[in-house]
Amino acid sequence: MAFCALSEAKGMVIKMKHFNKTKYLKEAELTIETFKDIEEVVADISNRNIENIFLIASGGSLAIMNPIYFVAKQKTKLPIYLEVAAEIVATGHAQLSENSLVITASKSGMTKETVAMAAWCKEKNIPIVALVGKEGTLLHKLATYTVLGKAKDAPEFEYMQLFVLLFGLLEKRGEFDGYLEFKNQLKTIPGDLARFRDEFSPKADEIAKAFHNVPYQLWIGSGSIWGEIYSLTMCVWEEMQWLKTKAVTSAEFFHGTLEIVEKDTPVVLVKTDDKTRSLDERVEKFLPQICDNFFVIDLRDYQFSTVKTEYREYLMAPICSALLGDCLSSYYEFYSGHSLNIRRYYGVMDY
Amino acid sequence: MAFCALSEAKGMVIKMKHFNKTKYLKEAELTIETFKDIEEVVADISNRNIENIFLIASGGSLAIMNPIYFVAKQKTKLPIYLEVAAEIVATGHAQLSENSLVITASKSGMTKETVAMAAWCKEKNIPIVALVGKEGTLLHKLATYTVLGKAKDAPEFEYMQLFVLLFGLLEKRGEFDGYLEFKNQLKTIPGDLARFRDEFSPKADEIAKAFHNVPYQLWIGSGSIWGEIYSLTMCVWEEMQWLKTKAVTSAEFFHGTLEIVEKDTPVVLVKTDDKTRSLDERVEKFLPQICDNFFVIDLRDYQFSTVKTEYREYLMAPICSALLGDCLSSYYEFYSGHSLNIRRYYGVMDY
Repeated sequence: MAFCALSEAKGMVIKMKHFNKTKYLKEAELTIETFKDIEEVVADISNRNIENIFLIASGGSLAIMNPIYFVAKQKTKLPIYLEVAAEIVATGHAQLSENSLVITASKSGMTKETVAMAAWCKEKNIPIVALVGKEGTLLHKLATYTVLGKAKDAPEFEYMQLFVLLFGLLEKRGEFDGYLEFKNQLKTIPGDLARFRDEFSPKADEIAKAFHNVPYQLWIGSGSIWGEIYSLTMCVWEEMQWLKTKAVTSAEFFHGTLEIVEKDTPVVLVKTDDKTRSLDERVEKFLPQICDNFFVIDLRDYQFSTVKTEYREYLMAPICSALLGDCLSSYYEFYSGHSLNIRRYYGVMDY
Repeated sequence: MAFCALSEAKGMVIKMKHFNKTKYLKEAELTIETFKDIEEVVADISNRNIENIFLIASGGSLAIMNPIYFVAKQKTKLPIYLEVAAEIVATGHAQLSENSLVITASKSGMTKETVAMAAWCKEKNIPIVALVGKEGTLLHKLATYTVLGKAKDAPEFEYMQLFVLLFGLLEKRGEFDGYLEFKNQLKTIPGDLARFRDEFSPKADEIAKAFHNVPYQLWIGSGSIWGEIYSLTMCVWEEMQWLKTKAVTSAEFFHGTLEIVEKDTPVVLVKTDDKTRSLDERVEKFLPQICDNFFVIDLRDYQFSTVKTEYREYLMAPICSALLGDCLSSYYEFYSGHSLNIRRYYGVMDY
């Protein structure tokens, strides 16, 4: 059974990370318990005169803001921006004021640039909602409102919290009708996400076997999963596996990156199942004509048991997070024999 | 003299592309002549009830919108968005309406996704200003207002046009006081940009000699030059030299990508001379501790002769375009013996 196998690459012995479904569903329950706290935050914010929303974070936490940004801009008349914490502190923004709402996140609650941004906002009386993984941390102390994370390593639970926050805010503005229904269906997705891991495992095994040690790999995706492609390549393959990558959107692939693809170039296309699917299909049609070393992961293969069709498009990033950030990374770790927990510089050097 | 040398790599004979200063300054003159057309466009737009601005394009033309977006969001209360043409057509945007202003660009005037976006906007009565390199092309026909490009291969002239457009609009809104002064100083930069090429040549020679054929190179930059880093790696190194690259912002470098850098990893940091310079300095301080195969290009080394200090920060992207997209790419071409004009797929296959 693959999940119990041992990798001995590089002279190390790595036991394949076992997906603990019981723990996962327990953490899902704890996450769902935070929905009522988020609704209190939404109620309070709705009494403020909010003129715009700024999603501001760093690295992996910036990436999880991406799908929220993607959905929000299709739905709300409220101006909404996605910004990098360090850049916003350096430059400011003409529309960021005490009438803004800043939404941020940091798993550790200690991300240097995000904490600096929160301090900078606080000084300007700009309200901040922060998703924080640890109580009592700097970000927790600086935030106007804190939503505590209950799951150690599952961005899909942060997505669930962000959706309740965003759609809650939109509902108050009359910009999202199905809030209660969607929230209830959201509670059912963890079981499905656990099942998707199992269904994806054989493919994860195949991809990891082929690409865990290639000198370069290209990942392509679009729309609401772009943040996931960005963070998988940067925060997982580069940071945790020391693998060189390039991530490009399906639309932009055709404006330069295609030219480096040859027969044997390692490529993965992740097809979303939302409004930008046609952009991925264009890549899918083109790739086989120039390359025979690619994989296609189609998120349409992963169907929720209770989520209504009209809400499904919002949930592409949680599927991606379960399949790629969790399941696939375990297979890379297994084949490479390179622990996902080892860093060369982060936590080792000061910078 | 390097500019007359011949490269015989790969059995081809490549004569180094000579920078034709006379032609360049002539094209600059023609570009400056378009300023009055742009001012007519600005006057007309200012009579409309514009609620927000959308900068929408594809590939290299999307990249040139980036510095405009960067400056605009620091200055205007008008909501402003930067979007990919193909994505906006696929998803729409809740705030994009006939009260929006779309600013777009395409050198060829025929970029498939940009033309489709313009047709989509036109159908919705959304006004479009288009920078177009060729008269009578599809984009020219679809646009509400067209600004014609007069220079074959110099994005810095498109930047000049975009600055006149943007700052002209902001001036009418009372959000940019120095418009006339800035416009007049803008007219003097082409001579400086030509001089910067000469000053940069020895360094370009050195970088190209070292990195024209490496299997992977990492480019880092921030703020108003991020678009230039993005397009240099994708639209020049990948598209025109078939070199594998990764581009990352100075801020995000510390959230994953740093871990793949070893002693011999080819890295170039481009230091801007605007508000995000401190983010680049953080990278500059860190890099030598882990790598000895990197170059730093400091835009502070390139000083305009007449531009006032307070306007200098807007002009980082034009400097970058002259140094990297033009001068450095010629040196890469020379050493690689790989013509910048050859494509594997673009113009060869249908996609």
